[in-house]
Amino acid sequence: MTQTPTQAAPVITPADKSMDDIVALCKRRGFVFPASEIYGGINGFWDYGPLGIELKNNLRDRWWRDMVTCPPDGPDGRPLDIVGLDSAIIQNPKVWEASGHLAGFADPMRKCQKCGHFVREDQLWEILATNSKWFDDLLQQFTPHTGEIDTLRLMEWAKRKGKKYAPNLALVRNPEVTMSWFAQRINGQPDAPPDVQELVRYLATEQLHATGLQEPCPLCGGELGDAQPFKLMFESYAGLTQTEDSKVYLRPETAQGIFTNYKNVLDTMRVKMPFGIAQVGKSFRNEVTPRNYIFRSREFEQMEMEWFCHPDEAKQWYEFWVQQRHDWWVSVGVNPANLIRREHDCDELAHYSTACADIEYQYPFTAPGYGELEGIAHRGDYDLSKHQEHARLKLEYFDQQRKEAGEPEDKFRYMPHVIEPAAGLTRGMLVLLCEAYTPDDSRPSKVFMKFDPSMAPIKAAIFPLVNKDGMPEKAEELYRQLRKRWAVQMDVKQNIGKRYARMDEAGTPYCFTIDSDSLADDTVTVRDRDTAGQQRINISQVEQYLADRIDGV
Amino acid sequence: MTQTPTQAAPVITPADKSMDDIVALCKRRGFVFPASEIYGGINGFWDYGPLGIELKNNLRDRWWRDMVTCPPDGPDGRPLDIVGLDSAIIQNPKVWEASGHLAGFADPMRKCQKCGHFVREDQLWEILATNSKWFDDLLQQFTPHTGEIDTLRLMEWAKRKGKKYAPNLALVRNPEVTMSWFAQRINGQPDAPPDVQELVRYLATEQLHATGLQEPCPLCGGELGDAQPFKLMFESYAGLTQTEDSKVYLRPETAQGIFTNYKNVLDTMRVKMPFGIAQVGKSFRNEVTPRNYIFRSREFEQMEMEWFCHPDEAKQWYEFWVQQRHDWWVSVGVNPANLIRREHDCDELAHYSTACADIEYQYPFTAPGYGELEGIAHRGDYDLSKHQEHARLKLEYFDQQRKEAGEPEDKFRYMPHVIEPAAGLTRGMLVLLCEAYTPDDSRPSKVFMKFDPSMAPIKAAIFPLVNKDGMPEKAEELYRQLRKRWAVQMDVKQNIGKRYARMDEAGTPYCFTIDSDSLADDTVTVRDRDTAGQQRINISQVEQYLADRIDGV
Repeated sequence: MTQTPTQAAPVITPADKSMDDIVALCKRRGFVFPASEIYGGINGFWDYGPLGIELKNNLRDRWWRDMVTCPPDGPDGRPLDIVGLDSAIIQNPKVWEASGHLAGFADPMRKCQKCGHFVREDQLWEILATNSKWFDDLLQQFTPHTGEIDTLRLMEWAKRKGKKYAPNLALVRNPEVTMSWFAQRINGQPDAPPDVQELVRYLATEQLHATGLQEPCPLCGGELGDAQPFKLMFESYAGLTQTEDSKVYLRPETAQGIFTNYKNVLDTMRVKMPFGIAQVGKSFRNEVTPRNYIFRSREFEQMEMEWFCHPDEAKQWYEFWVQQRHDWWVSVGVNPANLIRREHDCDELAHYSTACADIEYQYPFTAPGYGELEGIAHRGDYDLSKHQEHARLKLEYFDQQRKEAGEPEDKFRYMPHVIEPAAGLTRGMLVLLCEAYTPDDSRPSKVFMKFDPSMAPIKAAIFPLVNKDGMPEKAEELYRQLRKRWAVQMDVKQNIGKRYARMDEAGTPYCFTIDSDSLADDTVTVRDRDTAGQQRINISQVEQYLADRIDGV
Repeated sequence: MTQTPTQAAPVITPADKSMDDIVALCKRRGFVFPASEIYGGINGFWDYGPLGIELKNNLRDRWWRDMVTCPPDGPDGRPLDIVGLDSAIIQNPKVWEASGHLAGFADPMRKCQKCGHFVREDQLWEILATNSKWFDDLLQQFTPHTGEIDTLRLMEWAKRKGKKYAPNLALVRNPEVTMSWFAQRINGQPDAPPDVQELVRYLATEQLHATGLQEPCPLCGGELGDAQPFKLMFESYAGLTQTEDSKVYLRPETAQGIFTNYKNVLDTMRVKMPFGIAQVGKSFRNEVTPRNYIFRSREFEQMEMEWFCHPDEAKQWYEFWVQQRHDWWVSVGVNPANLIRREHDCDELAHYSTACADIEYQYPFTAPGYGELEGIAHRGDYDLSKHQEHARLKLEYFDQQRKEAGEPEDKFRYMPHVIEPAAGLTRGMLVLLCEAYTPDDSRPSKVFMKFDPSMAPIKAAIFPLVNKDGMPEKAEELYRQLRKRWAVQMDVKQNIGKRYARMDEAGTPYCFTIDSDSLADDTVTVRDRDTAGQQRINISQVEQYLADRIDGV
């Protein structure tokens, strides 16, 4: 009694998807809400709704299963050893002194001398280009006059629109003097006309000889001060007094909690090289400009594993983990066509790192470019060495096996090297949401969420066709059976089409409908989310039907 | 080939267990480590080691299953509706203004006018009695002289030991004057001799007429200042500047994140009264004196559910949830003999609460008394009303069913009442650890951890009897099979007795040993943790053997 499935939808790439649409669906269906929304929200923080937390938990649990409970086999075909950990968000500040975060974990920020607005130095021109009202408007004065600078037109702009949009721009405050410097420059090098950046710097400079060329505030046009490091760690105080001694920090990464417990794990768990320690948990970064939805938020969740190994084998393990992690993302439903591996250039690497690869995803807001999903870093012995130095504690490893194999002392007594696959859990969830979002005009919902069944927040829905005639009771029986094993929903309201539409938006892979035939012959209709095709199976087969498709067993 | 199990151990009560021993085992076996231990730790923060995180995850996942995925049936036998949520730790400060935490969530603290030490007003006499060197010593001057005050002996003490231990006590600084006030008191009311507290107040008072009776610092004996509220919320700043406008707080409870999302959940999830919203997550309280191991730490994890219902039914639901939650703790392995239900007295209740019951456990450090494990509060409509007022947003519920049933408007349009079962996840873990800890002198380890099998961090261990002759390969085959489903360990090192001992301390319920017979006839020895009894089963039965005992399926 199988019905013909509707035709498979054409392949849709991330570039075809609208981030606004995805955000709207996530709000509408209970995946993600702005934190404190009823109080106007709070920049950089998000709450995860009933479907969002199920999706996040599914991703978290799969990572834990595949990294801790049942990690992959190593290159030699032997099972790897990885143990879990859960360290506190607030640690002794000496941890961050040792790790270098206290001194170095900062963004270079420039403050506008006129309006006080802050802007990240390395993002200034990007922000001017994409997020500055006056800059956009000023540039329009040039487009029709390529190569030529129309002084009169600029003066005119300064007196009208400039006054309104960029009141603190040198050109606006003092057009004559500002233009005079610029004229000198043009006349001095007539054969090398200025590019846009140089032009804008001139227009932002009131006292050239006293100040040199200035750069303007994206908000008001005022001169920006020198870059100052802005610490990314949230600060707080533990204890009764708020003094330097009681200052603490919210961790900006989970990794350091692993390094500080390296010795505890070695002493208690009978692990031997190579082995890993894995952790899932929240981290906090006081980002100056949180953006792109949950991609860069101030409170986020990480899944990090530190793999400790012999220095001679580190390069091989690095390659191993880059490949493994790529394949893992594919295994949870990410189309490999939307992933790339990007090796960091030498000048991008942290000073302690000898190699780092990002697994990047083509987010709708980066397409056709890519953005980070997971980084796999070869950290060498940087962290353990730093903690050994600051804690004054030997962290070297004595490798019994290598000693017994007759290797020389510098080969069996060593500081382990570390490979770190560090993924964002909340970012991974964003990837699953973007990946699943599938516009389909042929459906009443116009869209469905094509999650891998194992990741879907709701695994199955159970519908009595009508809310009477014994159908709700029969449906409840099935519901009670299935919810012992999976997150399932029973829905009795509205017509069946509307119920399917809701489940399409929730990404529920299978819907089971109890109708009058069900009461007679114990069969149910199962409707497949992806094809919208339906078939009839016996009610006693439903659990196995789901197990085959969801757990793969 | 079943061997006789050893005799069951006698019943051991929490009072028989030493907290120091439990803490030592937790450190030794990787359950709990002091946070930042290699840097001397940090007061009130703990890290959870490889076994600790597995135990904590088991408890968390069971709660989620029994509260969200598959909650209990209601009193009418129908399945309840509860959805999950995960709100941010940092929220808009207006949330804490509305909830009353900003104004009221504080402990009364008194500062010593001499040494600057802080002490909680309501704990002063308890701390003096249990944790003050000079107080303990001073009291010894009285014990042999009940009823009589030996002035000379006191003066002697003041000049010698007092000078050393309580340099700022009035009696020590100015013995003659201090004793003169006291003599007046004795002579004035010879028939009403002072109790210890009054005596100590006199000895702490240098200028009675100017100051009234004083109370002394437990550290140095100096006078304590008036009580000032000390805010329990950790403060931080979000954004570039550290001003009042950018001040934020780490949540002191997960509950408010649920109330602020009440409307979002109603709008997106098709829930109807009564229903629940559940959340697991970290909370932070800047406790003045974190104590009793992980019982009262500054960073901890909660499992909270808010149950929204009609005001007329709230009392019934309150009773329902108190009973449910009690039974749940029993279902994860807590002996009901060690639990009590304690109803809060009227004067203990928060002003908005109409009833509150604690499920208390007899911790080794409270025995024979009890300490909180979970609180079930009847919060009325306090929280929703406060948020309605502060957010200027209608949060009333329109009850379609009651309207259709012909009820009057004040019965179908109402502000829901809330029953809140709020448990500590880390505290629950402490209960499981205390409960499991079972001294047993007949074992090499002298102790075993008698976790309910479903809670045990490691479900099974697989041992090749010797690390050769094909046994490791056979063991690895079984290990590979089982770890797909559960957290299991393979251990090849040391003699079998030592390996059993390790697993007894880890609380692993079943150990499977592969010996030479296994290679011949495919049988293994299974050793039961609780009885230490052994039997032989076929290797093909092992997975089902575990499933029956761990998952109960």
